Amino acid sequence: MVKVLVASRNQGKVRELEQVLRELNIEGVELVSLHDAPPYPDPVEDGLTFVDNALLKARAGAKATGLPCVADDSGLTVKALNGMPGILSARWSGNHGDDQANNDLLLAQMSDINERAAAFVSCCALAAPDGQEFTAEGRWEGELLREPRGEHGFGYDPLFAPADADGRSSAELTAEEKNARSHRGKALRALAPHIAALK
Amino acid sequence: MVKVLVASRNQGKVRELEQVLRELNIEGVELVSLHDAPPYPDPVEDGLTFVDNALLKARAGAKATGLPCVADDSGLTVKALNGMPGILSARWSGNHGDDQANNDLLLAQMSDINERAAAFVSCCALAAPDGQEFTAEGRWEGELLREPRGEHGFGYDPLFAPADADGRSSAELTAEEKNARSHRGKALRALAPHIAALK
Repeated sequence: MVKVLVASRNQGKVRELEQVLRELNIEGVELVSLHDAPPYPDPVEDGLTFVDNALLKARAGAKATGLPCVADDSGLTVKALNGMPGILSARWSGNHGDDQANNDLLLAQMSDINERAAAFVSCCALAAPDGQEFTAEGRWEGELLREPRGEHGFGYDPLFAPADADGRSSAELTAEEKNARSHRGKALRALAPHIAALK
Repeated sequence: MVKVLVASRNQGKVRELEQVLRELNIEGVELVSLHDAPPYPDPVEDGLTFVDNALLKARAGAKATGLPCVADDSGLTVKALNGMPGILSARWSGNHGDDQANNDLLLAQMSDINERAAAFVSCCALAAPDGQEFTAEGRWEGELLREPRGEHGFGYDPLFAPADADGRSSAELTAEEKNARSHRGKALRALAPHIAALK
């Protein structure tokens, strides 16, 4: 059994990663959340790309705990906003993790804009204590809605209509439906062989 | 004397354009502000570029009043935000024209980001009732400050340190100093021969 730290305080993300590992029948991996690890300071997310920020979070977790560490940096890229909120998705309104404020702000900014193309993007990084590093990116294409719909998920899920979800928002998909399609699922599936190889 | 409509409700912009015309000794042009023109509905600024929005505002003004119309679309482009706030500069916080909220939001979004390169960009457009159209763009390079400084100007002036202002913010420059350097001044100087040719 190899312990792997998941460097996120977001329990939704930890559950999403757990389900993907289970689906891929990757056994012998015990995911440890930040709540069950010795506390260490959050690294400042001062990177300019998803890859930058995923790697700096994975490195910080591996360094602090001595465990291989998986971290992701994910966000919503909106075409009319030149790809933003992007790396600032979770802090778009200025308050980190305030989903309601972030969603409200994005809708207000986009209220006059008819170009609604958007995508969820995730970069997942694995940093091992021996210095090995791997990254993988996943995208989930769709459109920005004009009002929130659905109760599942987190973040911008209520505002995002994936191209492959029959008109539903990503907050109207079950966790299983979302994981089968989502950016983070795609990135984690690409990263999974490296996680399995840790054993 | 040719009357030219300036399609802006922002008196700061009208004064900035007046000063540039005076400096260039372009005489025989009477600038008419929206306050002195017959009212017409604001066009929806649904373009995706400064040029798009400047042209749609100039066309709307010329069509509504029968006067040649100058409009500008300007904003702050921040490198770490992929060029945003950009066309959404005046409505970045969701409330059009709320300088304080826009400045506060931008500072909060950029609080962890060390890459501070930014530029003010302006596109000025002239649309004549006979269908002639001209556009010109100007840029003013600099860096984003970490707190507001200065009392002059408007918009993001207190947060922008131009590369050519000896460390002052653009809100610490006089109107004359700003016009001599600014993006809008550059764009208007490039457009001015077309305004002069209206006579």
